[in-house]
Amino acid sequence: MHAFAVPEFPEVRSDDSLADLVAERADLEDGDVVCVASTIVSKAEGRTASLADYPAGPRAREIAVRLADATGEQKDPRFAQAVLEESVDLLMEAPFLLTETPFGHVGVNAGIDRSNTGGAELLLLPERPSESAERIREGLDADVAVVVTDTSGRPFRHGQRGVALGWAGMPASRDWRGETDRDGHELEVTVESVVDELAATANLVSGEGDGGTPVVVVREFEFGDHEGSEALYREIDGDFVRQALRGWEYARN
Amino acid sequence: MHAFAVPEFPEVRSDDSLADLVAERADLEDGDVVCVASTIVSKAEGRTASLADYPAGPRAREIAVRLADATGEQKDPRFAQAVLEESVDLLMEAPFLLTETPFGHVGVNAGIDRSNTGGAELLLLPERPSESAERIREGLDADVAVVVTDTSGRPFRHGQRGVALGWAGMPASRDWRGETDRDGHELEVTVESVVDELAATANLVSGEGDGGTPVVVVREFEFGDHEGSEALYREIDGDFVRQALRGWEYARN
Repeated sequence: MHAFAVPEFPEVRSDDSLADLVAERADLEDGDVVCVASTIVSKAEGRTASLADYPAGPRAREIAVRLADATGEQKDPRFAQAVLEESVDLLMEAPFLLTETPFGHVGVNAGIDRSNTGGAELLLLPERPSESAERIREGLDADVAVVVTDTSGRPFRHGQRGVALGWAGMPASRDWRGETDRDGHELEVTVESVVDELAATANLVSGEGDGGTPVVVVREFEFGDHEGSEALYREIDGDFVRQALRGWEYARN
Repeated sequence: MHAFAVPEFPEVRSDDSLADLVAERADLEDGDVVCVASTIVSKAEGRTASLADYPAGPRAREIAVRLADATGEQKDPRFAQAVLEESVDLLMEAPFLLTETPFGHVGVNAGIDRSNTGGAELLLLPERPSESAERIREGLDADVAVVVTDTSGRPFRHGQRGVALGWAGMPASRDWRGETDRDGHELEVTVESVVDELAATANLVSGEGDGGTPVVVVREFEFGDHEGSEALYREIDGDFVRQALRGWEYARN
């Protein structure tokens, strides 16, 4: 398996065709996985905004006060309003806003970026990243898969790692159920989130800073002879950590 | 960046030298990252056990009853005892046992395996995976990094993905603090867990089943000119999800 960054990727602007920008710079082959940072998908889709677009309601003002209490820093209630409007569920209010986006991703601040925004105040996540991935895929000549990636923190472990937000042309996961180990026992590990692992691979290559390269091609990844699954985001019914977050309230020491 | 499985890796037995087994099968180069599945590290270190080694105490019997209530399946209290003895903290008792290992990893059943055990009933995680990584590294002629990997589930997202348990010859993370984006703004994302991303890459290549290849070499990974950090496992003080799990109790519908 190889992973390489698409070279000399330009600053992306609203209405740019990402498929064209990729095709002009990379000689894609059938079976490649094209990993595209969500930031440039958002820019191409015009998902920029200003704080002035989000006059704060009472809930956002209340959250901004709680956040300021928890962190000791002033928080702009309009930013809290933006996060609320980009979310369908609020898992934690303090010491940071952890929410679920309409497409199912759980992340801090609904994934709204204030750096790498191309000059705008706010860069929102793509509205439907799997549809974005499919559009890019359709614009490319080779028969590739496309993964829209982001970086995200997680409980229990420090640091961020690449994750998938959307995907097209391949399943989200491969399912090892019913397969056996070398001793003939059925495997305990049953579902492997390959799109997240591809996003992690891409993030190793792409970097984040001003030298960052937002498109990484993974070549010769073999999905293998497994069942696929399209489920990436858990429902709350099977997510016990998320259930525990319900009703929990952060108390500053 | 390339990733390839070390071919024809034999079944590993207690006291095998993993460094020798790798060196005989792969022509390593300076700068390679050698990702080694924790299962074979455990086998080489003789970390196998039997249920009979763990006569169940009252706490383990209580947990087995709760697990059986939650899942509707009988649970062996000796297995619960093994998990307790391999853990320093118990985060969730039902519907599954989520614990912290002595070296800081939070996972289900303290990472104790019942498949891929090489014939034993139980395969425990390596006691100190970063020390295991360092021993393997010292046994290899090239100047490589070594990552001991496992697969693990996570909240919010379905499926398992590769994670690092131990590492040597490189930092756990790279730190982008103070670096700027293309617009000159300081990056919000500050720490990237590269060892976890390397483990994810390895897992894409290695597979889990009887065709699984437990050692994957990642070549031409560039750490870049960043500060490194050795912290991988969060302390509970900064882990708000983990704090929420304290006092939470699973109630079956």
